[in-house]
Amino acid sequence: MELLKKVILERSTVQDSNVLRVGCFLNHQIDPYLMKEIGHEFARRFEGKGITKILTIESSGIAPALFTGYILGVPVVFAKKCISNNLDGDLYDACVYSYTKARDYMICVSSEVLSQDDKILIIDDFLANGRAVLGLNELLGKAGAELVGVGIVIEKGFQYGGQLLRDSGFNVQSLAIIESMSQDKIVFKNQEE
Amino acid sequence: MELLKKVILERSTVQDSNVLRVGCFLNHQIDPYLMKEIGHEFARRFEGKGITKILTIESSGIAPALFTGYILGVPVVFAKKCISNNLDGDLYDACVYSYTKARDYMICVSSEVLSQDDKILIIDDFLANGRAVLGLNELLGKAGAELVGVGIVIEKGFQYGGQLLRDSGFNVQSLAIIESMSQDKIVFKNQEE
Repeated sequence: MELLKKVILERSTVQDSNVLRVGCFLNHQIDPYLMKEIGHEFARRFEGKGITKILTIESSGIAPALFTGYILGVPVVFAKKCISNNLDGDLYDACVYSYTKARDYMICVSSEVLSQDDKILIIDDFLANGRAVLGLNELLGKAGAELVGVGIVIEKGFQYGGQLLRDSGFNVQSLAIIESMSQDKIVFKNQEE
Repeated sequence: MELLKKVILERSTVQDSNVLRVGCFLNHQIDPYLMKEIGHEFARRFEGKGITKILTIESSGIAPALFTGYILGVPVVFAKKCISNNLDGDLYDACVYSYTKARDYMICVSSEVLSQDDKILIIDDFLANGRAVLGLNELLGKAGAELVGVGIVIEKGFQYGGQLLRDSGFNVQSLAIIESMSQDKIVFKNQEE
C-alpha cells in the first residue's frame, strides 16, 4: 500500500535495528485519515469472503480494525489483555508472548461476542513473530469460529512470523512488509497488490 | 443522543446496580456504525472550538475518539496505561483510580504528541467519578496544552464525576446521562441536545 509506505518512510524512526517507532501515526497518536485508507485496503483484499466479524487485540489494533469493520459492515471485537471484571460471562483465553514487552500475557474474549457461526478476519498493527495471531487463532478455535484471513498493517519481514503463518496455511495480507531496516534506511519487500 | 439511548436500552445489561455492561457494542465488541454516529454528534457539539487533537485513554475510548477525530480532521492520541518501552522520548504521566478495577494505575503520553499549542478535546466511553478525565487533564497541564472540552459517551449521572467536572469549569458533553438504573429499568436524564 503506497500511501502507508510513504508515511512509514516520512514519519517513523528505527531504534536498535529492530524496533520501528510509529507512535506518531499508528500506535500512540493515530492518523484517522490513514486508518480509513487502511480500512479500505483491507476491505478490498478480503471482500467476498463472507466475513462476519473483525477480531483484534487492544490497543493498537483497534483503529485499523474499526475502519475495516465500518467499511465491511461488521462488528469489531478486541481481545483484552488481562482478565477484567467488566467482561460478560464465560471467557475464551490464550497466552501470548509480547516481543516489545518481553513477557507473556493473557488475552481473553467473552463467549458472548464470538460464536461458531462467525467467519473472522484478524487485524493487527504489527506482525513480527506471529504470537499474537496464534493466540487469537487459539481463541477462535475455542469458540469454534472460522478464521478467514489475517490483515497486518506492518509486517517485519526479517522476522519469522509471516513465513510461519503462511506456511501454516493462514491467508496473511500485510499492507507493508519491511525487508530490512536501520536508522538510515527502511527497505520494503516488493509486493503485488 | 436518541440512537445511543435506544442501543443502551436494547443491548446493555445492568449488574450489581452500578455496573452497566456495554460489551456488545462499546467496550469489547464495537459497533462501527454507532461509533461513526457518535463521532458526528461529538463533532457537532464541539465544532468551531479550534480543536487540534483528540485525547483518550486506551482501550475503550479509542473507537469513539477515532471517528470524532476523523470527522473533525484532527489526530487522536490515546494515553497508555503503563510505561511501555515503545513510547518515544519523554513522557507526561499521571495517576488514575479505576472504578471498575478498584485500583490505581499510571497513564502516560509521549511529549512528542502533545504540545503547548494544542487545543484538546478529551473523549472517553464512561464518566463515573471523573478520575480518568482529571488524570488526562493533569497530563495536558504538564504539556502546557489547553483543554477545550470533554466528550463522554455514557455518563453515570448518579455518581459525582459529572457534577465535579462541571463545577470545576469543564465543558462536559455526555451523549447519554443515566439518572438511575437497575436490572429492570434504565432511566436517562432529560437533556437538551
